[in-house]
Amino acid sequence: MINIGLIGYGYWGPNLARNFFESPDFSLATICDVDSGKLELAQKRYPSAKLTSDYNEIFVDKNIDAIVIATPVFTHFKLAMLALQNGKHVLITKPITETSEQAIKLIDEASKRGLILMVDHTFVYTGAVRKIRELVSGGELGDICYFDSARVNLGLFQHDVDVIWDLAVHDISIMDYTLGEVPNAISATGASHVPDEPENVAYLTLFFKGSLIAHINVNWLAPVKVRRILIGGNRKMIVYDDIEPSEKVKVYDKGIAVSNKAEKYKMLISYRAGDMWAPQLDMTEALQTELIHFARCIKNGERAITDGYAGLRAVRMLEAATRSMKERGKPVELDAR
Amino acid sequence: MINIGLIGYGYWGPNLARNFFESPDFSLATICDVDSGKLELAQKRYPSAKLTSDYNEIFVDKNIDAIVIATPVFTHFKLAMLALQNGKHVLITKPITETSEQAIKLIDEASKRGLILMVDHTFVYTGAVRKIRELVSGGELGDICYFDSARVNLGLFQHDVDVIWDLAVHDISIMDYTLGEVPNAISATGASHVPDEPENVAYLTLFFKGSLIAHINVNWLAPVKVRRILIGGNRKMIVYDDIEPSEKVKVYDKGIAVSNKAEKYKMLISYRAGDMWAPQLDMTEALQTELIHFARCIKNGERAITDGYAGLRAVRMLEAATRSMKERGKPVELDAR
Amino acid sequence: MINIGLIGYGYWGPNLARNFFESPDFSLATICDVDSGKLELAQKRYPSAKLTSDYNEIFVDKNIDAIVIATPVFTHFKLAMLALQNGKHVLITKPITETSEQAIKLIDEASKRGLILMVDHTFVYTGAVRKIRELVSGGELGDICYFDSARVNLGLFQHDVDVIWDLAVHDISIMDYTLGEVPNAISATGASHVPDEPENVAYLTLFFKGSLIAHINVNWLAPVKVRRILIGGNRKMIVYDDIEPSEKVKVYDKGIAVSNKAEKYKMLISYRAGDMWAPQLDMTEALQTELIHFARCIKNGERAITDGYAGLRAVRMLEAATRSMKERGKPVELDAR
Amino acid sequence: MINIGLIGYGYWGPNLARNFFESPDFSLATICDVDSGKLELAQKRYPSAKLTSDYNEIFVDKNIDAIVIATPVFTHFKLAMLALQNGKHVLITKPITETSEQAIKLIDEASKRGLILMVDHTFVYTGAVRKIRELVSGGELGDICYFDSARVNLGLFQHDVDVIWDLAVHDISIMDYTLGEVPNAISATGASHVPDEPENVAYLTLFFKGSLIAHINVNWLAPVKVRRILIGGNRKMIVYDDIEPSEKVKVYDKGIAVSNKAEKYKMLISYRAGDMWAPQLDMTEALQTELIHFARCIKNGERAITDGYAGLRAVRMLEAATRSMKERGKPVELDAR
Repeated sequence: MINIGLIGYGYWGPNLARNFFESPDFSLATICDVDSGKLELAQKRYPSAKLTSDYNEIFVDKNIDAIVIATPVFTHFKLAMLALQNGKHVLITKPITETSEQAIKLIDEASKRGLILMVDHTFVYTGAVRKIRELVSGGELGDICYFDSARVNLGLFQHDVDVIWDLAVHDISIMDYTLGEVPNAISATGASHVPDEPENVAYLTLFFKGSLIAHINVNWLAPVKVRRILIGGNRKMIVYDDIEPSEKVKVYDKGIAVSNKAEKYKMLISYRAGDMWAPQLDMTEALQTELIHFARCIKNGERAITDGYAGLRAVRMLEAATRSMKERGKPVELDAR
Repeated sequence: MINIGLIGYGYWGPNLARNFFESPDFSLATICDVDSGKLELAQKRYPSAKLTSDYNEIFVDKNIDAIVIATPVFTHFKLAMLALQNGKHVLITKPITETSEQAIKLIDEASKRGLILMVDHTFVYTGAVRKIRELVSGGELGDICYFDSARVNLGLFQHDVDVIWDLAVHDISIMDYTLGEVPNAISATGASHVPDEPENVAYLTLFFKGSLIAHINVNWLAPVKVRRILIGGNRKMIVYDDIEPSEKVKVYDKGIAVSNKAEKYKMLISYRAGDMWAPQLDMTEALQTELIHFARCIKNGERAITDGYAGLRAVRMLEAATRSMKERGKPVELDAR
Repeated sequence: MINIGLIGYGYWGPNLARNFFESPDFSLATICDVDSGKLELAQKRYPSAKLTSDYNEIFVDKNIDAIVIATPVFTHFKLAMLALQNGKHVLITKPITETSEQAIKLIDEASKRGLILMVDHTFVYTGAVRKIRELVSGGELGDICYFDSARVNLGLFQHDVDVIWDLAVHDISIMDYTLGEVPNAISATGASHVPDEPENVAYLTLFFKGSLIAHINVNWLAPVKVRRILIGGNRKMIVYDDIEPSEKVKVYDKGIAVSNKAEKYKMLISYRAGDMWAPQLDMTEALQTELIHFARCIKNGERAITDGYAGLRAVRMLEAATRSMKERGKPVELDAR
Repeated sequence: MINIGLIGYGYWGPNLARNFFESPDFSLATICDVDSGKLELAQKRYPSAKLTSDYNEIFVDKNIDAIVIATPVFTHFKLAMLALQNGKHVLITKPITETSEQAIKLIDEASKRGLILMVDHTFVYTGAVRKIRELVSGGELGDICYFDSARVNLGLFQHDVDVIWDLAVHDISIMDYTLGEVPNAISATGASHVPDEPENVAYLTLFFKGSLIAHINVNWLAPVKVRRILIGGNRKMIVYDDIEPSEKVKVYDKGIAVSNKAEKYKMLISYRAGDMWAPQLDMTEALQTELIHFARCIKNGERAITDGYAGLRAVRMLEAATRSMKERGKPVELDAR
């Protein structure tokens, strides 16, 4: 059993707590939050867990093997670094840190000490996203033309991060995992509709080598919930609609075929419209799958799918998007690091 | 009865022909197309119409009152100018011309001669879009925060225009009509997935005065058909889903209320989730409504809702979008003309 | 070219006229209607067709090869018998006649004279229904357990027939064609919500040999349009949703597997949930396919898929359903004729 | 605090346990199940609760105020009677008992002892159903014409009860609560597709005074999940789609208006198609609302909305439906008790 200290029992913390509690690999040893009301709630649900409002108690507790950080982003680096320096494995909610420099320092520290550093890019562990990666990497779709995501709803306005850092990080992590490529430039636009608050609507275009393009539409101020990703290949295309209760992933045998052009204005693009197919998906809760993976990484020293580098790649894209958004879409190059 | 000469019986021409034929205001006098197969089809359906492959016959025909141009974009200016110079009223399919300079010349020529120059921004004449304009201009939504449109499907690839000039022109015309404001800058991105062909996927962000922002997502290479526009106001929000057979327009009494912030990190944004309401819409075919309007403009000298200036505004946005797209999203200013 | 006389240019007649007009096999020679306004409309659209308000003109016209009857049900038998007696092939809109006795007489007359007698069970000629028949008869679904249809909307109230004769006839014809079996008993219930008018809501259960059961829910007074058929097999199941613009037919690899029961209350039914698959469908307009078939039957003396016997089987079920409905669901046996 | 003893920690028990645990009104004192694996699971989640495999321990425990019975139907009567005889209030999962005689005995026993007897007709406590009752009883729909429910999916096959007793009981309880009327006859049909097992598909028609008719379609063997109820009034109509994540209840201002008929075959029914409206619903979990109500009934001696009589009315309809189903739809009269 791996003993867990959880810091943060606010919005996402209770989901982590429940999954760690139900997992056969972990023991939910300590829960920390600065809000006494939340600690009381945690105590009622998990009377066997120790409770504290001082996270230092967790760092110095010899009994704790791994620390889970579910606090606001601006605290991630400080808490994670302390955890690593005290010899604990670390799982951090997304995004991993506020800056790419911070992410690099955490990666180095974890590497030096041989500890697992993992970021909670939850969607990567869903059956839907894992199936999509399998289809893309297996060549089922042919060459990928575009990745187009919309993630909008009447969401919780954040004060410390904008909608890109809050929502687009999900799409970026899904894109990173399923396409396995990094963009070379980003153009982003957005707007804030509450004075002195961060942008609540944003649009990102990510340019890749060749003609691959990705786009992400995020919005905290939408009347309906949309969570739809289209992935267009030159052989097949995917629609991943996360709102659907079942058949979340549909594969369309649709596309175009291009013949050599003999003369101008002669239509030589032909259209294919074939069957649609919705593969059966593993419906296990993503966090459960993620925790099994986290446990295996800790026990066997395996490299995490969503390791520090995955967290770093996401933060680099978020940084570039933020810079571009401040200049109304002016493209920002991404180093090919 | 207004005698009509229709030039172009290809993709859209047959819809225009059918509506002019069924209209009590018009007589479909002549149909012109360079393709003899298409002329044969037209002849079978409209034995009473004259048929020709030479558009000059229409221009010089004293009997013809108005000319309808449903040909490729690159021919619009030349044909429309000839029509006006021969004293005919003109209805042109979208976009009105290839350049804003051409549109200005047509506006001037029509104005000088007292002729009606109208562009077929079809969606403006749907019951849905007219209802949305009514709701927006009546203040039902409060201040508009954003206009967000997605128009994607496995569409006909065009050789002479890109997806912006083919599809985004619809969203631009809907936006222009419903919001009644012109943007001051545009950032656009896109990609082509067929060598030597125009862009088949594109994303436009349009910046307006204040915090109003618009976004348009167009794609010829999508496996599913999406035609959805979200309009977010600070009091209510609209979802216009043109794929829905009924209840195309839904008004959500949802939003946020912002209180004065006493101290940082204190959540002072509250969420409202109220009723949803789908107004009954006029389901008349848009072209039918448009032709009634065209007839009235001709008869009474009324100014067309989608007059040359509406066509010009759209072309200016398309030009700016194209320029920005060539520079991967670098924003392009729009003159406040 | 087969010369057609069309009797009835009301609700469905215009669709028939348009398809006969566009067909290369037929010539729309004469249109008959008692309503002069409708004749005027027909004349404008088909100036080449002869028009009459007296159907006898059609019967005696030597030039006419086949007569299409699109009039109220109570006139079907009389008109069809006259047509056959005058040596014309006949296509009748559904249901073929008011009684099974009438249908038998028409079948006999047509047979005696070697004429084609066909009923316009339109849905049978859709790509969706033909694909379903192919899947069912090919054994893809295994043994069929049930056929369950809902066909409801705010429909046109009829004065001379109830909702069973107006709507359920569609489901019965689809069921007859796809399952290829006839029921041995029917229980039906229904209600009328307009005084002195026929039932506007009805429910039919059809019992077959073995455990196969069918159910049909029809309603003229529903706020939404539903046209959905579920077909459950012990290996796979189908959902046919005719409202969907594409993917109308979905095949689910779902079901149960039953093991021998060792002891009571031991759960020995296991559930299978596999992929879903939506086959590409022929999207040709059903009437167009039907007319090609009608032409071939006339030319080659082929037996029509929806011949008089298909019409008769449907009418027998309708008669039994009506009798059962009058006794609040008391089952009515169907002769195994 | 009301001390609760829960019998049955199988399928539904865990939901009851969680809600009792989180409720401020109740203390989850004891959990009983005959399956040791389930007890272990309960122990891990609720370490503060006593656990037992012998339900007698709960009956004799002076500390227990109320007993919740979440066991198979055939045990309901025996357990509930013992609970009442030991002076405990009782909440029983649906259906209340196997027979109406048993329900009457429980009602009498509870009445004699002044104890609360409540049946867990969960849907009655949803925001959706409460809103529908409000609309119906407030006259918003006018006179009710029909109630039409479909509740199908690939559900858990039961061995001891058929699909009517398992699923239709939900629709019956919703109908009973929203319409406030009892039927005078029932016609039901159904089929079993697993040898020696109860019916897995069934159709019920319920006849009421006047022309009101209700229909219920239930199916354990469907490839998709449908939970849709249409309620047609002569002024407005409701669609309640429980699968929708939001806007579960939609009110359509649609219908027909009937004028006096002057002459036969003259269409005097006119159609109204107005706005649609989706009222904001209370999204509280139904069980939470139900437990607040249960607590209030116990504390104040209020009559429960879903009291023994509600349970009895449902069982009477289930009994009649079962009898009719055995005779292929022959209508069974219901006493006007």
